[in-house]
Amino acid sequence: MSEFFTSRWIDAPAYARVRVDPGLPRGFRAAGVPCGIKPSGGRDLGLLVCSSERTTSAARFTRSGTLAAPVLLTIEQARLHGLRAVVVNSGNANAATGALGLEHAANMQQAAAAVAGTPPDAVAVASTGVIGVPLPIELVQAGIEAAAAQLREDGEADFSQAIRTTDAFEKRVSLELELSGGTVRLSAQAKGAGMISPGFATLLVFVQTDARLSPETCDLLLSVTVTRSFERVSVDGQLSTSDTVILQCSGESGVAVEPESPDELRFGEALDATLRQLALMVVRDGEGARRVGRVLVRGGDEAAVSRVARGVADSSLVKTALYGGDANWGRIVQAVGAAMPGTAPLAVDIAIEGVQVCSRGAYVPHDREALAAAVQRDEVEYEIGLPGEGIETELFFSDLGHEYVTINADYTT
Amino acid sequence: MSEFFTSRWIDAPAYARVRVDPGLPRGFRAAGVPCGIKPSGGRDLGLLVCSSERTTSAARFTRSGTLAAPVLLTIEQARLHGLRAVVVNSGNANAATGALGLEHAANMQQAAAAVAGTPPDAVAVASTGVIGVPLPIELVQAGIEAAAAQLREDGEADFSQAIRTTDAFEKRVSLELELSGGTVRLSAQAKGAGMISPGFATLLVFVQTDARLSPETCDLLLSVTVTRSFERVSVDGQLSTSDTVILQCSGESGVAVEPESPDELRFGEALDATLRQLALMVVRDGEGARRVGRVLVRGGDEAAVSRVARGVADSSLVKTALYGGDANWGRIVQAVGAAMPGTAPLAVDIAIEGVQVCSRGAYVPHDREALAAAVQRDEVEYEIGLPGEGIETELFFSDLGHEYVTINADYTT
Repeated sequence: MSEFFTSRWIDAPAYARVRVDPGLPRGFRAAGVPCGIKPSGGRDLGLLVCSSERTTSAARFTRSGTLAAPVLLTIEQARLHGLRAVVVNSGNANAATGALGLEHAANMQQAAAAVAGTPPDAVAVASTGVIGVPLPIELVQAGIEAAAAQLREDGEADFSQAIRTTDAFEKRVSLELELSGGTVRLSAQAKGAGMISPGFATLLVFVQTDARLSPETCDLLLSVTVTRSFERVSVDGQLSTSDTVILQCSGESGVAVEPESPDELRFGEALDATLRQLALMVVRDGEGARRVGRVLVRGGDEAAVSRVARGVADSSLVKTALYGGDANWGRIVQAVGAAMPGTAPLAVDIAIEGVQVCSRGAYVPHDREALAAAVQRDEVEYEIGLPGEGIETELFFSDLGHEYVTINADYTT
Repeated sequence: MSEFFTSRWIDAPAYARVRVDPGLPRGFRAAGVPCGIKPSGGRDLGLLVCSSERTTSAARFTRSGTLAAPVLLTIEQARLHGLRAVVVNSGNANAATGALGLEHAANMQQAAAAVAGTPPDAVAVASTGVIGVPLPIELVQAGIEAAAAQLREDGEADFSQAIRTTDAFEKRVSLELELSGGTVRLSAQAKGAGMISPGFATLLVFVQTDARLSPETCDLLLSVTVTRSFERVSVDGQLSTSDTVILQCSGESGVAVEPESPDELRFGEALDATLRQLALMVVRDGEGARRVGRVLVRGGDEAAVSRVARGVADSSLVKTALYGGDANWGRIVQAVGAAMPGTAPLAVDIAIEGVQVCSRGAYVPHDREALAAAVQRDEVEYEIGLPGEGIETELFFSDLGHEYVTINADYTT
């Protein structure tokens, strides 16, 4: 269909095509400018505004116990079902900054509301970057002014640039989707390359559509699709202070997505594929990742499959083997056993790239050369069967290599 | 006191001195021989036998759901309170080997019992090395015969060598301890380059004394000291299929350690310091570790302090910062928040090497240069305060650096 949906693990959505020309869904304008936080002088302030007063929205946030100030502020001070504007800075997370940090987040919200012509509680605030350093608020405020002067209907590329930190490549897409009432657009911009794990990640994701969705439909669709995408990835098992995902619907296409309609299914499928592909791109960008793994766990109960999937995806030994292009399935056995304490002897089945290596907890003869070749590819799939029927879950994860160490050992506060 | 108790975090035990001359506690003999499993031709079969029919013992094992065959066998088929002999091979973990693996473990137990002159259920079996490869049982059986012919009262060095896999250095000690009834000896040999070494590994720890302890006292002291030592370390957050810790008491000194006596306290302190120092050596040996961290968590409740300590010690971001000699305390904030979901805003205090960097969740001004210098040292201490009085716990952990990636990405099954 296009080069956005590139993984064999994600079906390109039906009724959708990837747009080549720039341009946000109707009703939205965006900008991204340099405001002086990043030492590089790169764009570090993003602003996104919807002109419609009837904008609906939904939002999801990290569950960290040490929430960054903008997350705390947005959860407590914004109308999450009617967000019209988003203001984001990169280079400084405004986290572990106490009362001053909350004041700065409120300053950002007010400044963005003033230039967007909205009430402050219609503005979401997000920050990403280093933790524990006070935000240079004057620079940010001046940046908001500058961004306001540059808001454009095709400003998504600049906006996308402004929300990035260590991302090696851009993560955004714009779709055109055929619904029964006409054509709608769906755009998304994501940022994230590390600190990615349970409860989706140091991950900022902004999604816009000009379809008309009720706040309830918007919330339901975001909830389902985030659960299947950003909550199913792990780069380094770390949960960020700042994760934020926002879906905004301007309704400016005049095409409504009604609950339990075929259009809701089409829209939901497109949103689902988009977020899953973005999640996979975040994993692939995972701070120097060479290969991406997918672990698929079947059987047992919900708690067990989830624990096993996390255990495998977060195992340093599995990740280094993936990096090394080494099947080393004994490490899968070890990770599964560690995730299921007290259950020995556990009748676990393991297949890698379709080659069964372990049946009911014990080695089975297999074609070692074919397996060795298969794990050299960019994407490696691990299937794990636990006793019992029950549940199936998947998790995407990055490898662990020298680039991760280099990036993270040298990245200083 | 000596060069064994080298860490500022471990007090050398009172009433004890480190022995320089070789020699196990009275009643014990040991040997270590090459039997042909290790491609290097090095020693890979260890045998340790106690002559006393009144030997008491206690044992602790990994809780993995995919227990290796020798662990399953020992738990089910051995009298854990009366173990007289231990047989160990390195180079092959005999894990994920199914019914054949259990048969091989039983073969090892029977062969060792025959040469030791004990019933089979007085023999513990342990294996460490690669997973999922059938044990070359004929080599092992021949090795047991060869080891039996070489059992010596000063065989602990050979035995210690035979249980090693990738350990960069030897981990063993022999103490002489003054009790009210006379002098007793306490020896220990450990294997482990992390909770996991490349290939699967494992922690094997064998401790011998010629003091006389009831099975109950032996079990109690091992339980308390293992909880404070080997359960308080993390190299890469991985749990092995094969971890085994065994304490054997020959009673051959004629000196009894009675419950709740001053001697029990002295003996317990010496055992505690010994196991903690060995645990710290395992962390220091952890896969090319450059630095060792100690995280000390106070406050909250038992579940919270434990989760936070694990969260910090297992965080790839904290570990790479430790490796890089970077204070980067924002990563501690992140790891604490991830371990305490739903508690924001969390009033956490953080100090690194005594320098307070975060108070009640927010940055506090501090001497950045002094801190930067402090985190360059071999041992770095992180103190974390959670709201509330309550509990205190500690955890030792290794850093994550290029050597870890090199060792684990290049190791093949």
